[in-house]
Amino acid sequence: MSTNNLDNFKNTGDYNQSLDRGLQVIQAFSQNNKALTISDVSKITGLSRPTARRILLTLEYLGFAEASNGLFTLTARTLSLGYAYLSSNNTWSIAHPFMRDFVEKTGESCSISILDGTNIIYVARISTKRIMSINLDVGSKLPAYATSMGHVLLANLSPEELETYMNNLDFEKFTDKTIHNKQELLQTLQDVREQNWGGVDQQLEEGLRSIAVPIRNASGKVFAAMNCSAHAGRISKEVLRDEFLPLLQESVEKISQAMAATNNSQYV
Amino acid sequence: MSTNNLDNFKNTGDYNQSLDRGLQVIQAFSQNNKALTISDVSKITGLSRPTARRILLTLEYLGFAEASNGLFTLTARTLSLGYAYLSSNNTWSIAHPFMRDFVEKTGESCSISILDGTNIIYVARISTKRIMSINLDVGSKLPAYATSMGHVLLANLSPEELETYMNNLDFEKFTDKTIHNKQELLQTLQDVREQNWGGVDQQLEEGLRSIAVPIRNASGKVFAAMNCSAHAGRISKEVLRDEFLPLLQESVEKISQAMAATNNSQYV
Repeated sequence: MSTNNLDNFKNTGDYNQSLDRGLQVIQAFSQNNKALTISDVSKITGLSRPTARRILLTLEYLGFAEASNGLFTLTARTLSLGYAYLSSNNTWSIAHPFMRDFVEKTGESCSISILDGTNIIYVARISTKRIMSINLDVGSKLPAYATSMGHVLLANLSPEELETYMNNLDFEKFTDKTIHNKQELLQTLQDVREQNWGGVDQQLEEGLRSIAVPIRNASGKVFAAMNCSAHAGRISKEVLRDEFLPLLQESVEKISQAMAATNNSQYV
Repeated sequence: MSTNNLDNFKNTGDYNQSLDRGLQVIQAFSQNNKALTISDVSKITGLSRPTARRILLTLEYLGFAEASNGLFTLTARTLSLGYAYLSSNNTWSIAHPFMRDFVEKTGESCSISILDGTNIIYVARISTKRIMSINLDVGSKLPAYATSMGHVLLANLSPEELETYMNNLDFEKFTDKTIHNKQELLQTLQDVREQNWGGVDQQLEEGLRSIAVPIRNASGKVFAAMNCSAHAGRISKEVLRDEFLPLLQESVEKISQAMAATNNSQYV
């Protein structure tokens, strides 16, 4: 579908509103919304109460949700929806051994993400100590402008793609250090593009710093980013840059080679 | 919903058929079905071609699928559906540090799964070397009767639950050693119940053996199983039982304590 067609799609007979709403209801559940009533789901999604009820009962019938005393929770079967993607895409399983190796050498967490609209979405992660207030896992979304992987991915967009991103962007100030205007972000992205890596120091959360490098396909196009994140009180910016960055670059080089050695059309 | 209500649910006005079908289409994608045409999806799901087309176009519109030359693939956004469950359920993130510790000590893979119908479904996994022909990850499903975690989970069902399981069971012979009749399975489950751990030697796949132990909530009820799987050519049954089993039991003990220390109603 072209972008033009996408804009009009909702008005065509092909748009399946029930499916759209059902997927919205699944995504209404989160760390702060573990168990929800019909009314809760109605409020979070903006769907009417009868619609939210019908969807929740259908999810329960299909085994994707459970209900107890009027409170709905998701079941592990929901994981099979994400697994349909993971198992149909071996890119990230190829990266796993190299990520494990990096984590063993540094003792710090390592993740891979791709750009999804204005967010980055985690597609692979090996964590060591938990250092963030939110629980990051495969499938987590974070705003691209506040993360080192986001900077790497944004820095490698085409000028047209970057303009679209900038036009859809709303800045939120997570900490005193969060980038919060376009000029500052564009300058940062230019630096990232030139040095071929990105670093974020407590811009997303106090006490968290990270560095990231791009993962390129065989034709040199950046399609993902890999990072190392660490507690700011434990790992200095200098250690990240002088010790961990070369290891991260080495790991990504090996991942690119392993990916090129397979015949997946996604990255050749 | 009671089981009785579930049986009749499809005939009520509350059943959302479009949502049911949409989730079926997402699950049509797998390791062997990475990129699918509308006809492929129609064949796999049994849905009509127009219905499959409408759902695929809607998934593309919503950013959960991409299309290129008539071939549809899932996008990483699909992971956010599984993440809705993971982030709303901190049980498995509590287990992660203990699993990592086990993997460091043994050098072998460690997973946690729960029972989902006749399958086990992986809810947490730390893998070392890849030893299976299929790619296992969070969200993977395997038939309970052919796995050590499945044996542990089945052995701890109530007699009524076990009878329901047995009535819905179709045996498939994966290897020469796969259990393939009810009598043999019931005998195995009795042994597992008595010894409080399960072991499977090349019943799911040649060259793969594993041991598993139950994870109990504060009231002693088994709600998950944790295993260690290894290559049969590298790790003997004796090493698994005499060296790895005590480590696995120790890890599960720590996990149960850590879970009891939190106030999650799921396991207290």
